[in-house]
Amino acid sequence: MKNPSFKRKRQDASIDVRKLGRIKGFSLDPSMHVRELLAHYKSIGFQASHLGLASEIIHTMKKKKSTIFLACTSNMASSGLREIIAQLVKEKLIAAIITTTGFIEEDFMKSSAPFYLGSFFADDVTIKRNSLNRLGNILIPDKHYADFEDWHMDFISRIVARKATIAPSEYIQLMGSELRDTHSVLYQAAQHNVPIFCPGFVDGAIGDHFFFFNQKAKSKLIIDTVADVTAFYKLMLQAESASGIILGGGIAKHHLIGAAILRNGLDYAVYIQTGTEYDGSLSGAKPREAVSWNKLKDESNSVCVEADATLVFPLLAFALTEKKP
Amino acid sequence: MKNPSFKRKRQDASIDVRKLGRIKGFSLDPSMHVRELLAHYKSIGFQASHLGLASEIIHTMKKKKSTIFLACTSNMASSGLREIIAQLVKEKLIAAIITTTGFIEEDFMKSSAPFYLGSFFADDVTIKRNSLNRLGNILIPDKHYADFEDWHMDFISRIVARKATIAPSEYIQLMGSELRDTHSVLYQAAQHNVPIFCPGFVDGAIGDHFFFFNQKAKSKLIIDTVADVTAFYKLMLQAESASGIILGGGIAKHHLIGAAILRNGLDYAVYIQTGTEYDGSLSGAKPREAVSWNKLKDESNSVCVEADATLVFPLLAFALTEKKP
Amino acid sequence: MKNPSFKRKRQDASIDVRKLGRIKGFSLDPSMHVRELLAHYKSIGFQASHLGLASEIIHTMKKKKSTIFLACTSNMASSGLREIIAQLVKEKLIAAIITTTGFIEEDFMKSSAPFYLGSFFADDVTIKRNSLNRLGNILIPDKHYADFEDWHMDFISRIVARKATIAPSEYIQLMGSELRDTHSVLYQAAQHNVPIFCPGFVDGAIGDHFFFFNQKAKSKLIIDTVADVTAFYKLMLQAESASGIILGGGIAKHHLIGAAILRNGLDYAVYIQTGTEYDGSLSGAKPREAVSWNKLKDESNSVCVEADATLVFPLLAFALTEKKP
Amino acid sequence: MKNPSFKRKRQDASIDVRKLGRIKGFSLDPSMHVRELLAHYKSIGFQASHLGLASEIIHTMKKKKSTIFLACTSNMASSGLREIIAQLVKEKLIAAIITTTGFIEEDFMKSSAPFYLGSFFADDVTIKRNSLNRLGNILIPDKHYADFEDWHMDFISRIVARKATIAPSEYIQLMGSELRDTHSVLYQAAQHNVPIFCPGFVDGAIGDHFFFFNQKAKSKLIIDTVADVTAFYKLMLQAESASGIILGGGIAKHHLIGAAILRNGLDYAVYIQTGTEYDGSLSGAKPREAVSWNKLKDESNSVCVEADATLVFPLLAFALTEKKP
Repeated sequence: MKNPSFKRKRQDASIDVRKLGRIKGFSLDPSMHVRELLAHYKSIGFQASHLGLASEIIHTMKKKKSTIFLACTSNMASSGLREIIAQLVKEKLIAAIITTTGFIEEDFMKSSAPFYLGSFFADDVTIKRNSLNRLGNILIPDKHYADFEDWHMDFISRIVARKATIAPSEYIQLMGSELRDTHSVLYQAAQHNVPIFCPGFVDGAIGDHFFFFNQKAKSKLIIDTVADVTAFYKLMLQAESASGIILGGGIAKHHLIGAAILRNGLDYAVYIQTGTEYDGSLSGAKPREAVSWNKLKDESNSVCVEADATLVFPLLAFALTEKKP
Repeated sequence: MKNPSFKRKRQDASIDVRKLGRIKGFSLDPSMHVRELLAHYKSIGFQASHLGLASEIIHTMKKKKSTIFLACTSNMASSGLREIIAQLVKEKLIAAIITTTGFIEEDFMKSSAPFYLGSFFADDVTIKRNSLNRLGNILIPDKHYADFEDWHMDFISRIVARKATIAPSEYIQLMGSELRDTHSVLYQAAQHNVPIFCPGFVDGAIGDHFFFFNQKAKSKLIIDTVADVTAFYKLMLQAESASGIILGGGIAKHHLIGAAILRNGLDYAVYIQTGTEYDGSLSGAKPREAVSWNKLKDESNSVCVEADATLVFPLLAFALTEKKP
Repeated sequence: MKNPSFKRKRQDASIDVRKLGRIKGFSLDPSMHVRELLAHYKSIGFQASHLGLASEIIHTMKKKKSTIFLACTSNMASSGLREIIAQLVKEKLIAAIITTTGFIEEDFMKSSAPFYLGSFFADDVTIKRNSLNRLGNILIPDKHYADFEDWHMDFISRIVARKATIAPSEYIQLMGSELRDTHSVLYQAAQHNVPIFCPGFVDGAIGDHFFFFNQKAKSKLIIDTVADVTAFYKLMLQAESASGIILGGGIAKHHLIGAAILRNGLDYAVYIQTGTEYDGSLSGAKPREAVSWNKLKDESNSVCVEADATLVFPLLAFALTEKKP
Repeated sequence: MKNPSFKRKRQDASIDVRKLGRIKGFSLDPSMHVRELLAHYKSIGFQASHLGLASEIIHTMKKKKSTIFLACTSNMASSGLREIIAQLVKEKLIAAIITTTGFIEEDFMKSSAPFYLGSFFADDVTIKRNSLNRLGNILIPDKHYADFEDWHMDFISRIVARKATIAPSEYIQLMGSELRDTHSVLYQAAQHNVPIFCPGFVDGAIGDHFFFFNQKAKSKLIIDTVADVTAFYKLMLQAESASGIILGGGIAKHHLIGAAILRNGLDYAVYIQTGTEYDGSLSGAKPREAVSWNKLKDESNSVCVEADATLVFPLLAFALTEKKP
């Protein structure tokens, strides 16, 4: 008796393995450069191959001079990816950012005061009693929020005095103009005219402040998100080639790939995410699903790296900054 | 030699196991009622115990006449949870809904045309060529979106003719007033004055239509999300006791628990989610983390069931509708 | 300008939506039976549909009089699923169990002493100092392990006196014969000649005891796992139709579907698991992957419900016990 | 009205943030070495900080001359991590490996024939008809298994002729002795007397072959896993300091940390895994849980990086090979 699985006759010759990449590792060499390491990833298999493929797709985006949109969740600014994103903006590698309000707040706060490394398993009652707030394993003092609130309440007054109805991207650019921190995404975006779109701009401490302001203001602030849809969609439609780099899920991811429907899909896409596909959430949806919606032109020009972006994006950002890929 | 772990001396007597619940199963009886089954869950362990605890917390919410806010992602309307939520609204068990734009669109579309059960692993190019869109294992014909667009472009004109600046919750209520489908959440919400808040209202097909409209309109539409922050926060601040039932993550979850900061936290909270905690995302954050932010008063009045909500919420909804818990 | 995605021409008519199931919810009725509730799941979408499909596949397994193998991880015995599995064994609904050593130990221990419901976030140093061990949110006193060790060291001596080389399934049956607890899987399996296979039998406290015993024994115990491979594979090969119900991953899952290769695959399979596919682990592999290996005949006779089994298996077990599906 | 969360009085001063690490990014420099990059991870937050911490703990393991045990699932050999692990064995950085049978088979097969990079979403019926087997996004030709079977059936005969009862680690060492591939883990382990323990050795194609052999053999093969428990536990007990590096979950992980109970726990531990904690599975259990069981001495000497190991272990392996950390 022989194992039937492995003695079976080949019934189909549609796959020519000689044309496929081979799985192989590499020799660890203490003097290896990040660039060299990254070049090995594609052959490792599983998500390492996806990271290697992501690096190749980013090289293609750059070669094709594709307009690159970065969508990311707010916790990317909470983390040390903030400074990397600021550098990408400064080097004009990204055409626009689509994100959520926490990103704006935390990037701004970090310009004057640090966040701290805590633990996922710390006692939250103790953290609260120490006037800290926990965001995964990152700790943010209450004082940062209170200082931001003081500054921001005054800023709102100044804005409303000039213009009571304003689009989030314009508002965010004005915030960035008040900063002098070269590691700030808002600062670099304001300096280099890179728009930051925030379709749910009222959701966050900023929204609390709007509530406080409008409660007693004569001239009420109106946040005109439709104006930003117009601005963002025009950018998307004008781009000869459009690419998305997407860190995390939620409204930032959806807003980017949703806008791409109007141009029959992104040309290239790299997702880095932890969301699960099985619950039908947009956050967990893979590039495949985007193809059905015309959010992505062709699955072969895309890849999803399933991982926390803090592990992966520092490596991928090298692919973005490389001069001659 | 004895196994050192299990012969060790007790150094601390702070835990009295006799006061803890015991883990035990139950006898399968074909005539069992859902209510009886649910009563067994708490003793099973792991997430089953979390589901059992969620059911108890919901009973407490009702007993304490707490104001219950439901936050959910758009795919809850894509799924058959839509009809369950509509029933909860009809029975006045929920005071407000916080959600994303896809929820509004899909609940509306379903009032006139069905969604279909497909497969997560279907070929997306084939799906696209069949004029369908895939949302997990649910298929939505292009025609539903096209019909919705036709209706909605006209609706926008009618709205703008009346009021060019409008809050999402008012807009959504007017949409619901045009429906006659008792299984629609929008219809029931309009009938029973249950507000639906949507802080990122421009993100979706509805936003595309706003873009189309404002491109050529003389009188442009302005979506006033700050007005809704005011309306929502007032509800939240007026509630003597406030509870959250949260299905999924993203902006809907954040907007609900973020608003609760202003009242020093929710009194009771049930999360049902698939998000991962380890990436520091809000979508994956547990009730524990909310305690540090004053988003939740006390962890002991909360629970997170880690699961796709379609598996769990049909069971939990029984706890909500039960007359005498 | 119209939204191009949703006005597109149908290029392919291979999918006839009228033949697909429709997504729909149901009315919550406090007097609903579990059986009725389960019948609604398939139409809900996402994982609820997978649960509904799993229930249908289990009905087919029974209708076709397929031999049903249950593979599960040890924590199923830690949880309240233990009593449900014991009932399934008692009712002769399962032909064999494939599991890991912890299952054997914990089922045995529970026959004389309870496990307790704790919390996932308890302080583990405190737990240790209280002479408890944490398994997720389940607590097991050291004393249970110490008592089991005392009994088991004596049992080994008795076994070796009779037969120094023994297969795990025979060993486990002899363990079950010493019990009188009708809620024990080992007891019911011994009573009804349902073999329990445990290919990694030395991995656990039982293995510690073997180590202690063989250190000083003249006649050393030999656990003959190859003999069990023979016994299990014969069962698998003799079955006219073979089905797998798989709770969790690891060696239990692999051993069941791996054995099926020799018969060119299982006829029917239901997986309930939390493992992730993206890391290429067997624990996260879906039925699709099994098709490539001849572990499963046809993907259409299978389904994977992505969830903690404690949430889902209590519902599915009803499908197994129903008299006339 | 002020936001109450962020203006609150500090009630507790137990956390001195000035003693905590600060979250910060770094400047991307195309000429950066992997070693330099790795040094930045700890300050990034979320899982990046866990990776940075893992690197520090590995430096400590080496500094303390701790005996390092590597536990890993079989798919690590399927991937390109195989060659990295072989190098670590060759450089005597690992004292023993605990793994599953697929690891043994695939490492062996790769010594003579390559595996290929496919796709997670390929059609599995097509793959099967092309006489390939899919393991995530890795493809393995049937021929490799058939060739291995031919070699192995003969090898079994030779083994049994010498010694009918044999421990897996001895068996595996004899397999490795027949290889000449310096990139093979089995080869390097045989050359350098690094034992490979495989408590569930009958689970896999190797087990199929044992079944075929014993069906007709006069002198039957007995795999003596208890002998290996003795060998492994002695190594574990003799080590002055013991450390675990654990890639993935299942029996390999459990066998390593379970053995550590006898020495009151590992001194240092690094987990890299994707398993979920919420289902009470051992695969998803965190170092915290191990503390309650005496599997780990102290949580502060451990870390869990939640990720597919192919992304993370190539970076961490640098920490292992560095001469002067």
